[in-house]
Amino acid sequence: MTGWKEKIQAQIKKEREAAVELLQAWVREKSVQGEERSIQESIAKRLDAMGMEVDLWVMEGEELTRHPYFVSPRTSFENSPNVVGVWKGTGGGRSLILNGHVDVVPAGDRAQWEHDPFSGEIVDGKLYGRGATDMKGGNLASLLAIQTLQALGVRLQGDVIFQSVVEEESGGAGTLATILRGYKADAALIPEPTNMKIFPKQQGSMWFRLTVKGRSAHGGTRYEGVSAIEKSMLVVQEIARLEKERNDRITDPLYAKLPIPIPINIGVIEGGKWPSSVADLVKLEGRMGVAPGEAMDDAKAEMDAALKRLAERDPWFAEHPVELEWFGARWVPGAVAEDHPLMELLQKSFESVTGKQAVVEASPWGTDGGLLTVLADTPAIVVGPGVTQVAHYPNEYIELDTVFQCAEIFALTMLEWCGIAQEGGVSS
Amino acid sequence: MTGWKEKIQAQIKKEREAAVELLQAWVREKSVQGEERSIQESIAKRLDAMGMEVDLWVMEGEELTRHPYFVSPRTSFENSPNVVGVWKGTGGGRSLILNGHVDVVPAGDRAQWEHDPFSGEIVDGKLYGRGATDMKGGNLASLLAIQTLQALGVRLQGDVIFQSVVEEESGGAGTLATILRGYKADAALIPEPTNMKIFPKQQGSMWFRLTVKGRSAHGGTRYEGVSAIEKSMLVVQEIARLEKERNDRITDPLYAKLPIPIPINIGVIEGGKWPSSVADLVKLEGRMGVAPGEAMDDAKAEMDAALKRLAERDPWFAEHPVELEWFGARWVPGAVAEDHPLMELLQKSFESVTGKQAVVEASPWGTDGGLLTVLADTPAIVVGPGVTQVAHYPNEYIELDTVFQCAEIFALTMLEWCGIAQEGGVSS
Repeated sequence: MTGWKEKIQAQIKKEREAAVELLQAWVREKSVQGEERSIQESIAKRLDAMGMEVDLWVMEGEELTRHPYFVSPRTSFENSPNVVGVWKGTGGGRSLILNGHVDVVPAGDRAQWEHDPFSGEIVDGKLYGRGATDMKGGNLASLLAIQTLQALGVRLQGDVIFQSVVEEESGGAGTLATILRGYKADAALIPEPTNMKIFPKQQGSMWFRLTVKGRSAHGGTRYEGVSAIEKSMLVVQEIARLEKERNDRITDPLYAKLPIPIPINIGVIEGGKWPSSVADLVKLEGRMGVAPGEAMDDAKAEMDAALKRLAERDPWFAEHPVELEWFGARWVPGAVAEDHPLMELLQKSFESVTGKQAVVEASPWGTDGGLLTVLADTPAIVVGPGVTQVAHYPNEYIELDTVFQCAEIFALTMLEWCGIAQEGGVSS
Repeated sequence: MTGWKEKIQAQIKKEREAAVELLQAWVREKSVQGEERSIQESIAKRLDAMGMEVDLWVMEGEELTRHPYFVSPRTSFENSPNVVGVWKGTGGGRSLILNGHVDVVPAGDRAQWEHDPFSGEIVDGKLYGRGATDMKGGNLASLLAIQTLQALGVRLQGDVIFQSVVEEESGGAGTLATILRGYKADAALIPEPTNMKIFPKQQGSMWFRLTVKGRSAHGGTRYEGVSAIEKSMLVVQEIARLEKERNDRITDPLYAKLPIPIPINIGVIEGGKWPSSVADLVKLEGRMGVAPGEAMDDAKAEMDAALKRLAERDPWFAEHPVELEWFGARWVPGAVAEDHPLMELLQKSFESVTGKQAVVEASPWGTDGGLLTVLADTPAIVVGPGVTQVAHYPNEYIELDTVFQCAEIFALTMLEWCGIAQEGGVSS
């Protein structure tokens, strides 16, 4: 592939200014859940102009909403179409899905933002805004990789399938819909914000709700009641024990650098209604990490068993068992072999572009890649230019240089993965 | 006082049917906070008809609202007048306040009530409804005691001051207003629901709010954050230690039967916003019991010191101290000597009427008696016919027999405390 790196870099340099403006325009589209139509239509238009076969549709129907992996707070997606554009190959090559989501989480408290979250303001090479890192910057890298190869006159053998999906932040219904619509490929790249680390394995996760019971009484005679707040402390301790047990079993070296490979996080606690009454109910909500290769049902059964164990520690729980409910978001775990050919190609491209060795780790969070790997037989690798630490936070930003670096790496990788059918007119 | 018991009992028997109807009418008056005008006007009318000097007024002004003991969620009491009726004595005797509140707490979830909470329905000698026990039944006993003595033609030497106050459930602004208006006496009886136990001492209490800080992070990398939920567990433990220390010091035999004489109850917990984020803030709200004779500021200082100790147990708290706020309701503790003459009289009357020995204990909760004792130099004793356990709960009820028993005990006690100026025409 001699010379391709330089050609790609030169082409991307030319496109840089327009690409930055495009990313700004995308960030200015406030594509929170239920408001994705505008950005999706503009993306569809752009893919069409690039000569791709464009598919824009509103997902619906029971095949989707009754699917065991369907998770969403809503069942109608009227203002949230999915978009897929296929850059048809000449045939014979390996196909590749470039998957990314356009939905962004809410901006939260405006006062905590230094820059308007939907301004796309650029300071010192960083573009600020909700979705800049998670993951419109990544999506731009994918698009730019295709655009660059096209500008260089390249035709690939394998198909490249660009997917701009909705609903990732709520558990992946958008990507599930692409799978049910028949989209699959020989592999997939998902440029979620990994700081350009390569994640062949990704943790899954599920949300749970625990209801801890007590018995009310006046605070002045609190000994006549049973505090659900005190009992919930025992529950939190038991969950911590379960977390330790589950993580002690993880020996995969890809997890070596993570203090807790598959955490169980209790994120919400709420109970009691009156300062001078004994609380008779506490609700705990959390997220349970699921190991790559672990069945979600097995993880659920372990949680169930841990809660049952509470009765041995405190007889109260024998008569008033903690209620367990799985609700809300859920991400399927996924794993791609570390020696998968796309893994090797990616690392090689990374080193070629950056001059450094790629960092390969396991993802501490879930993405739509689990669905692609498990349901669509499409091994998905997660690697992208966004800054992990600022995703979902105020002052979210992305470093523009990394976006273009990622585009270069993707373009190089695509050349080898999909195969070159026809080199462009640009001399090598 | 030979013969008085029988005369009083006979008279009350005559009044019984009308008295029950009056209690039903009172319970049907939904006198929750802000809706007390109607019941207060009807009480004022009744006191007037009984020849008492009646004072109905809407409390207001900065003397009240800026008073250090003023606690209320509101500053305007337009629809919540206080009522005081004075049955003037002939002079020379000891005066007595009969204090009771007409405000009731909300009925709560109707589905948990067997009977309409504002019906006053009677089943098996129990009158059901919000406020029946806390404390309209007690108020009726006070009124009936006066009415009975009047019907028997008695004139007392000391004044009897019947007080129907608002705002007890919110911390006592109604009684505070009577004190600022100049009402005081040689002693007071407050027929709060004690199951007819006699409480010469009453616990005070104060509400507090604690804000426990953490640091947010994604649940999948929860080790990068600090869970305010986990930290709040340490806070709950520290509060439990403080409660133990404070209660270990209580040696008063009146508290011997109470497992925790002055409890600290944490009644509300709330923190975190998202199951898969590390909670960065937890709010705890509770009620701290204050011993009779303990200065409220000393109790506050102990809470403060306990929270400061947390920094020794966990360095996190050194940099992120728990915030402490005293808010909402507050009840001043109060104590009357066990050999106070009114205590002796009350016990004698109790034994005379019931044939049993009175149970003397310390109150596990606060009443307006603390304000009377501390601010108005009016030693207040709490004893009443209501059922402690059902106050503030669904299916609140009162046993009608106990109401009339209490009226008999109060009437007998008043005769001796205030002194008889003129016996009635009924032969003894």
